[in-house]
Amino acid sequence: MAQTTPNHTQTVSGWAAHDSSGKITPYVFKRRENGIEDVTIQILYCGMCHTDIHFVKNEWGITMYPVVPGHEITGIITKVGSNVTKFKIGDRVGVGCLAATCLKCEYCQNSQENYCDQVQLTYNGIFWDGSITYGGYSQMLVADQRYVVSIPDGLPMEVAAPLLCAGITVYTPMKDEGLLEKDSARKRIGVLGMGGLGHLAVKFAKAFGHHVTVVSTSPSKEKEARERFGADDFVLSTDLTQMQARKRTMDFIINTIPANHSVGPYLELLKVNGILSIVNVPEKPIELPSFPLIFGKRVVKGSIIGSIKETQDMMELCAERNILCDIEVVQTDQINQALERLEKNDVKYRFVIDIAGQHNQKSRI
Amino acid sequence: MAQTTPNHTQTVSGWAAHDSSGKITPYVFKRRENGIEDVTIQILYCGMCHTDIHFVKNEWGITMYPVVPGHEITGIITKVGSNVTKFKIGDRVGVGCLAATCLKCEYCQNSQENYCDQVQLTYNGIFWDGSITYGGYSQMLVADQRYVVSIPDGLPMEVAAPLLCAGITVYTPMKDEGLLEKDSARKRIGVLGMGGLGHLAVKFAKAFGHHVTVVSTSPSKEKEARERFGADDFVLSTDLTQMQARKRTMDFIINTIPANHSVGPYLELLKVNGILSIVNVPEKPIELPSFPLIFGKRVVKGSIIGSIKETQDMMELCAERNILCDIEVVQTDQINQALERLEKNDVKYRFVIDIAGQHNQKSRI
Repeated sequence: MAQTTPNHTQTVSGWAAHDSSGKITPYVFKRRENGIEDVTIQILYCGMCHTDIHFVKNEWGITMYPVVPGHEITGIITKVGSNVTKFKIGDRVGVGCLAATCLKCEYCQNSQENYCDQVQLTYNGIFWDGSITYGGYSQMLVADQRYVVSIPDGLPMEVAAPLLCAGITVYTPMKDEGLLEKDSARKRIGVLGMGGLGHLAVKFAKAFGHHVTVVSTSPSKEKEARERFGADDFVLSTDLTQMQARKRTMDFIINTIPANHSVGPYLELLKVNGILSIVNVPEKPIELPSFPLIFGKRVVKGSIIGSIKETQDMMELCAERNILCDIEVVQTDQINQALERLEKNDVKYRFVIDIAGQHNQKSRI
Repeated sequence: MAQTTPNHTQTVSGWAAHDSSGKITPYVFKRRENGIEDVTIQILYCGMCHTDIHFVKNEWGITMYPVVPGHEITGIITKVGSNVTKFKIGDRVGVGCLAATCLKCEYCQNSQENYCDQVQLTYNGIFWDGSITYGGYSQMLVADQRYVVSIPDGLPMEVAAPLLCAGITVYTPMKDEGLLEKDSARKRIGVLGMGGLGHLAVKFAKAFGHHVTVVSTSPSKEKEARERFGADDFVLSTDLTQMQARKRTMDFIINTIPANHSVGPYLELLKVNGILSIVNVPEKPIELPSFPLIFGKRVVKGSIIGSIKETQDMMELCAERNILCDIEVVQTDQINQALERLEKNDVKYRFVIDIAGQHNQKSRI
């Protein structure tokens, strides 16, 4: 346990769930001393990811309680280790999902460390020293510099936070398919689900001139999809006529649906050789019927977050193109209320916890 | 119905199932007259595909009875239409799964007509004239020349037959990934299921020097996999220790398992960015758990048969490299017995019906 790891001497105030009720309460714990490769970060903001719900409620059966969630962290560096060259005190930085990887495998050596099979996450992971990792629902974090990115000056810290998971999760698969290049050919892109991830996928796609169709179970999202985010088309996935009319029209679809589902109807929307990108983790396995997969030579690809290099690239892009996450700022005493709303997808479009209380009062939900 | 379509005047003897019992009995029916683009083929051999069972028993709910199965057909041309340039009387030819496509769409125009969304199959399809198509469990076939391939001299007609479905089904996805080129880099390839499709996948992979692992639920297949087909490794998929030991070792896996299953354990065998090719159609949707897909950036790709051009290319390759389907020849009065054995995967490795009785007596099963 973190508290008993020898060099874990720094006392930190945070917020943790202690059992599968998922209720979050204040929690004081220890972090490691700042090592030679480490930076200490005063946390300003932490985004709330749907994954946090899976962990606090132990929905995947792998939670180690108490769990301090949070992997969309922005803050200011207050201390640097003697080997730290990338950062200095006062730097605006972010930490996403990665806490440690093996540093030796081909993926670690080639800036794909998010695919290292020894990867340990920012919370509910096991760090190199054997301690359990605690995330960003806390006032201070000690992180190895290799898993820290700079936040460009143009990006406000509160809107940058969700880019560290929600943003990079949708950026990487689109980048991998050549959709986010200056000279990208205009493609027809579908976005399944318009929540925290989905609305950012729409923004990335529109920033590069693609034709974007939002596919959703909520008719109420049509107006926002079209008017607020500039989507070109909207399909109610429960309406078979609407779905039928878009068969074989899309080149690429990104699937952000957190609920259990079959991808059969969505595969039908793809052209031959079209790609369905899976970045979501429903509780039950996704249903994959063979016919729409094989009759269209379609492709289903997985992707999880991105490397540190990709995350840094994305941050620069978001600053340059003004691609910002739409957020609702919440205070630390509102975390449970926000989690409840998040579970009902009642958020536009990401909750961000004002850890340092900078937005106090004016931003209460 | 075929019998009442105006120009369907040619009487043909065949074998059909009349209801979902799937029992096959002799059946006399009509085929169209030989049109200007058509060739008439005296059928010599017809392979028995697992798909035939799905259709005769109406397991997919789309069978139009009576159904004359068979889409692995080889024979001799006995008549050619006035526009036929590709073939002449006496030519050795084959017909696979395709009976008709739209001829106009981008896929038809670019030798990918197997992905035309108007595709009609060799049996249980609707031809351009509105008639139901009847397959190769019959003595004669009329086929549009555009869906006919030549059988190279070096290939015996009986072993060429199963290449028209089983062969092309596994050839195309491997060809698409660059695995069947003269200078292909040696890759680690997994073959899931070693039946009609699987044993041909092993042969193609070994012909190009790849490291091949057969993954099967049947320990009895190990000896044959290694000794008869030259597989380098064999994994019993029900043995977790064996599966665990091969995690992240394979570049490409082809999935030929006809039974319902989850692909989760097989995805784990793939390296990061590895490809799982789906060419099978289990009755129920395949279970696709997100974690092994996204944590390895893995890819699941569908593929169905191949184009006529690809099928012709494969035939030339098989003749050149002596890649032959292992078959058991059966007589027309043994079709039901063979279907029963096929359903239990009790065949090494494809039944081929001796339609013209050339193998009589010596080859009874």
